[in-house]
Amino acid sequence: MIIIMKPDASEEQVAHVTERLKKHGFGVHLSKGAERTVIGAIGDKSAIQLETIQMLPGVSEIVPIRKPYKLVSREFQPAAELAKRGGANVLRGGAFKPRTSPYAFQGLGEQGLKFMAQAREKTGLPFVTEVMDTRDVDLVARYADMLQIGARNMANFNLLKEVGKTKKPILLKRGPGSTIQEWLMSAEYILSEGNSQVVLCERGIRTFETATRNTLDLNAVPVVKKLTHLPIIVDPSHGTGEWDLVPAMAKAGIAAGADGLMIEVHPRPDEAMSDGAQSLKAETFSKLMAELKLVAKAVGRTL
Amino acid sequence: MIIIMKPDASEEQVAHVTERLKKHGFGVHLSKGAERTVIGAIGDKSAIQLETIQMLPGVSEIVPIRKPYKLVSREFQPAAELAKRGGANVLRGGAFKPRTSPYAFQGLGEQGLKFMAQAREKTGLPFVTEVMDTRDVDLVARYADMLQIGARNMANFNLLKEVGKTKKPILLKRGPGSTIQEWLMSAEYILSEGNSQVVLCERGIRTFETATRNTLDLNAVPVVKKLTHLPIIVDPSHGTGEWDLVPAMAKAGIAAGADGLMIEVHPRPDEAMSDGAQSLKAETFSKLMAELKLVAKAVGRTL
Amino acid sequence: MIIIMKPDASEEQVAHVTERLKKHGFGVHLSKGAERTVIGAIGDKSAIQLETIQMLPGVSEIVPIRKPYKLVSREFQPAAELAKRGGANVLRGGAFKPRTSPYAFQGLGEQGLKFMAQAREKTGLPFVTEVMDTRDVDLVARYADMLQIGARNMANFNLLKEVGKTKKPILLKRGPGSTIQEWLMSAEYILSEGNSQVVLCERGIRTFETATRNTLDLNAVPVVKKLTHLPIIVDPSHGTGEWDLVPAMAKAGIAAGADGLMIEVHPRPDEAMSDGAQSLKAETFSKLMAELKLVAKAVGRTL
Amino acid sequence: MIIIMKPDASEEQVAHVTERLKKHGFGVHLSKGAERTVIGAIGDKSAIQLETIQMLPGVSEIVPIRKPYKLVSREFQPAAELAKRGGANVLRGGAFKPRTSPYAFQGLGEQGLKFMAQAREKTGLPFVTEVMDTRDVDLVARYADMLQIGARNMANFNLLKEVGKTKKPILLKRGPGSTIQEWLMSAEYILSEGNSQVVLCERGIRTFETATRNTLDLNAVPVVKKLTHLPIIVDPSHGTGEWDLVPAMAKAGIAAGADGLMIEVHPRPDEAMSDGAQSLKAETFSKLMAELKLVAKAVGRTL
Repeated sequence: MIIIMKPDASEEQVAHVTERLKKHGFGVHLSKGAERTVIGAIGDKSAIQLETIQMLPGVSEIVPIRKPYKLVSREFQPAAELAKRGGANVLRGGAFKPRTSPYAFQGLGEQGLKFMAQAREKTGLPFVTEVMDTRDVDLVARYADMLQIGARNMANFNLLKEVGKTKKPILLKRGPGSTIQEWLMSAEYILSEGNSQVVLCERGIRTFETATRNTLDLNAVPVVKKLTHLPIIVDPSHGTGEWDLVPAMAKAGIAAGADGLMIEVHPRPDEAMSDGAQSLKAETFSKLMAELKLVAKAVGRTL
Repeated sequence: MIIIMKPDASEEQVAHVTERLKKHGFGVHLSKGAERTVIGAIGDKSAIQLETIQMLPGVSEIVPIRKPYKLVSREFQPAAELAKRGGANVLRGGAFKPRTSPYAFQGLGEQGLKFMAQAREKTGLPFVTEVMDTRDVDLVARYADMLQIGARNMANFNLLKEVGKTKKPILLKRGPGSTIQEWLMSAEYILSEGNSQVVLCERGIRTFETATRNTLDLNAVPVVKKLTHLPIIVDPSHGTGEWDLVPAMAKAGIAAGADGLMIEVHPRPDEAMSDGAQSLKAETFSKLMAELKLVAKAVGRTL
Repeated sequence: MIIIMKPDASEEQVAHVTERLKKHGFGVHLSKGAERTVIGAIGDKSAIQLETIQMLPGVSEIVPIRKPYKLVSREFQPAAELAKRGGANVLRGGAFKPRTSPYAFQGLGEQGLKFMAQAREKTGLPFVTEVMDTRDVDLVARYADMLQIGARNMANFNLLKEVGKTKKPILLKRGPGSTIQEWLMSAEYILSEGNSQVVLCERGIRTFETATRNTLDLNAVPVVKKLTHLPIIVDPSHGTGEWDLVPAMAKAGIAAGADGLMIEVHPRPDEAMSDGAQSLKAETFSKLMAELKLVAKAVGRTL
Repeated sequence: MIIIMKPDASEEQVAHVTERLKKHGFGVHLSKGAERTVIGAIGDKSAIQLETIQMLPGVSEIVPIRKPYKLVSREFQPAAELAKRGGANVLRGGAFKPRTSPYAFQGLGEQGLKFMAQAREKTGLPFVTEVMDTRDVDLVARYADMLQIGARNMANFNLLKEVGKTKKPILLKRGPGSTIQEWLMSAEYILSEGNSQVVLCERGIRTFETATRNTLDLNAVPVVKKLTHLPIIVDPSHGTGEWDLVPAMAKAGIAAGADGLMIEVHPRPDEAMSDGAQSLKAETFSKLMAELKLVAKAVGRTL
């Protein structure tokens, strides 16, 4: 996780937070910027009460690095083989964050990429992160193992072409107002630049139904399988917006033929600053993992 | 199946069709109405070329009795226990048919109910059929084991109240433009009349996506489970409108927690007069059944 | 308006309410049913504080008879000429009410029809009312000048056929989840029974947008004009669900070519039991009427 | 219009096309690129048969510069005053084109901007053009009078911030899968950088209806007026996708309170390479303009 200090935090306050983290076994990395100091902390978050850190003098906010599980049972294009390594796990973190409001925290930029690179060193897990601007593609590609094109940028054709010029696998999320046909045309933009390592990610579409935040469209899984050779994964966390619907829809996604899942996991979803409502606790996640293996086996896959 | 003769078909023509059917091992039941003669034929349709019958002089059309599979692994309310009997199979046939065009065949009415009752005797399988008019509820309830409220009539409140007064289990399909909340309120109309034997059926909603005929909304399964004790089944045939998407979505439905499925099976989908595009061949269906058992087991159900 | 007394209201209480109404110049009609007494009151509601009546001992609820304006500038089929008579105004009242909840007030039935017939006598204005059940068609057709098929019953084909057998003009509302094509097929069901007096009514469709209750689809106006000779009116009150959007969308409807409007008017929308949020006050309505005449003239219509 | 020559076109072929254009009274501007030659032609297209030019040896394609009419009757923020000048007309042209397919023509880039600047000189009309990439904002802002953010980039937050740093008015199209709330938050991204000259453009949302390409959501007009001071215009050409629906929806847009319109006009829509189906002929447009003035007057606006 990352602790962002207030602009006017004193040296003593920074030192106090750092000591506290070390005492609980965290590896700590300090980064003093022109405007404020940021503390990267890698370790077992369950060893500490986040709110005690949150309440320390000088602390502005705590930003988690999320751990999406990516179950990969089918041969991805070589591009996506990375997802298999390390037990088929990938970290996800947001260096550049697409926020609905211009006044919300927009991410740490390169500093965030460095933190994720450190997390990768500690855990051995590769990481995926979103890129939102053609001007950032080179920078992000230098650090990340996989680049994510977010749902809002699915039809940002210049960005698609730019990531198509990298050698990194691309995770292409479906736009919530986009047809499957348009989604595949967006993939084509990446492929047309010579990068064939595209992984599609279904994350829900806009409908009149309000019981779920989006309508996770699992029909897209067999449709995509019929029309293309590209791997497809399912994101039930964003797709439904409700953590208690995630296990059912994760299992359904695998049963429908998805090549993987992207699931939000959070040690204490109630305290999460954003996306808490859709995050699973660690123990729920472990139980789900065991069930997912059975479902995958039932449909002829192995994990 | 049912063979409808032309209004001006001669006695010889009727006799010719009847003989031909018997020669192929069909049990035949003749019904001479004021306007035309109808021939009920029960037996193995794969033993005969349907088009040879279709082409016989005097034949107007051939109407199949479809066989939806209803997988029931959870305790339905006693109401739906019938679905378990006979190997958890239910026949479905249309005595009254909701047709988009007023000029299309509207069903055989009581004659159709009699044919389905005969099919029940032969096979030992109960049958479900749609009722569309408050005036027909008593008639249909006399014959059928379960009454279906079609998607178009989900908010026909008088009809809901009327079937609520019967003692028969009710299969309540979701309207393609209806929220889950409205669907549950429609169920409440039935329950409020004293009939608690309601089975919900998700069959796809209207969205902007055109790759599938409807968007089968599997999110409805865990949402319904969270909000109510009512059993819910999934209809991937109508939900997707494409037979080659049916197996994937059937497995996904069970994995999501559905209590059963309604699947169109057709011996020769290519020749089917209607709904052919969404029907499975018998062998595909058998293969799917075996896989469904594994998926059900993986999520802690037994068939 | 109609005052519904509680089941246990005493004769004195009924008499007290009646006197009070007469004192304010209302014509009063008493109807003692087996279960409870209902008081029909015809007169100028602005002369009285509704809440003072509501609070009288023994009063259960007050049900308004609404006055939708129907602007008819194009030759309807003879069928809809009635809408022109009496200054192109039509009353609307609900004898049978489609309520989402089975526990809500379901309308007064025949008693309600009688009240509306009395209102017609007093005002000289014809009235339209909804019919929801094939069994009620004859009854409603005996009283009403025009029968309404509600949005929920747009695809209730038996009901469509039954109203097609009457000689009364039919107001066919579009289902919120129905395409224009399906809507026109529903009209065809009525026409196919020999009744060509069908008036279509656009009242909003279901979309992902939540700023308005429905998305009033004015595109339907020119599309319907292109495909058919049937008249089409627009209901901006249900279509948007917000009274302050009604004037803009009413003017837009006429400018798009609609043959009329159905607008909810309420003397005191804040106090309305249902649909208050979408009802216009009388003075707003008068102002709107003046503007509508100008818009109609601008697009070559005369009122 | 712009005539793009084939890469292997000879000097003679270029000269031949140029002469032909001059003979018909066109002002011609030649631009020889590394790969191919492009001919800008400004004049009265109705004076010439486009297909005769299309068929000349060496010609690859003809790209029109469209002329959207922008009716501005309300005080825009100073930002949009430009739209009033020159008779409230604005030219629109695509230097950078968002194309669904990566293999389609993607625009002429800076060369296209130069052609539009020439058109501005000749006609005295300002021009608006789309910018799709943060890296192009400075370039486009040097030439264009107004920058357009296309529907696909409505939530491209970095691009919004970048155009927010320019001093040029911004035309912000609504994303077809975006709520009004999200659209206004996107406007906020521009405003937050200090540029308050934002004009919103409703151009249709995604719904289940297939009779129109999109569902032009005119409800957005009064909703936006209620929530914000920003001007809003309506694009019935993209909104409906059908030229014969454009006049009705243009009039409806103005009646609903829109501050302007964006309408595709094409001398010969049948021959248009793209968007022909939604373009108006010049004479239809003139007739529409006269009607629009009357509608604007009816709702208290002057043109």
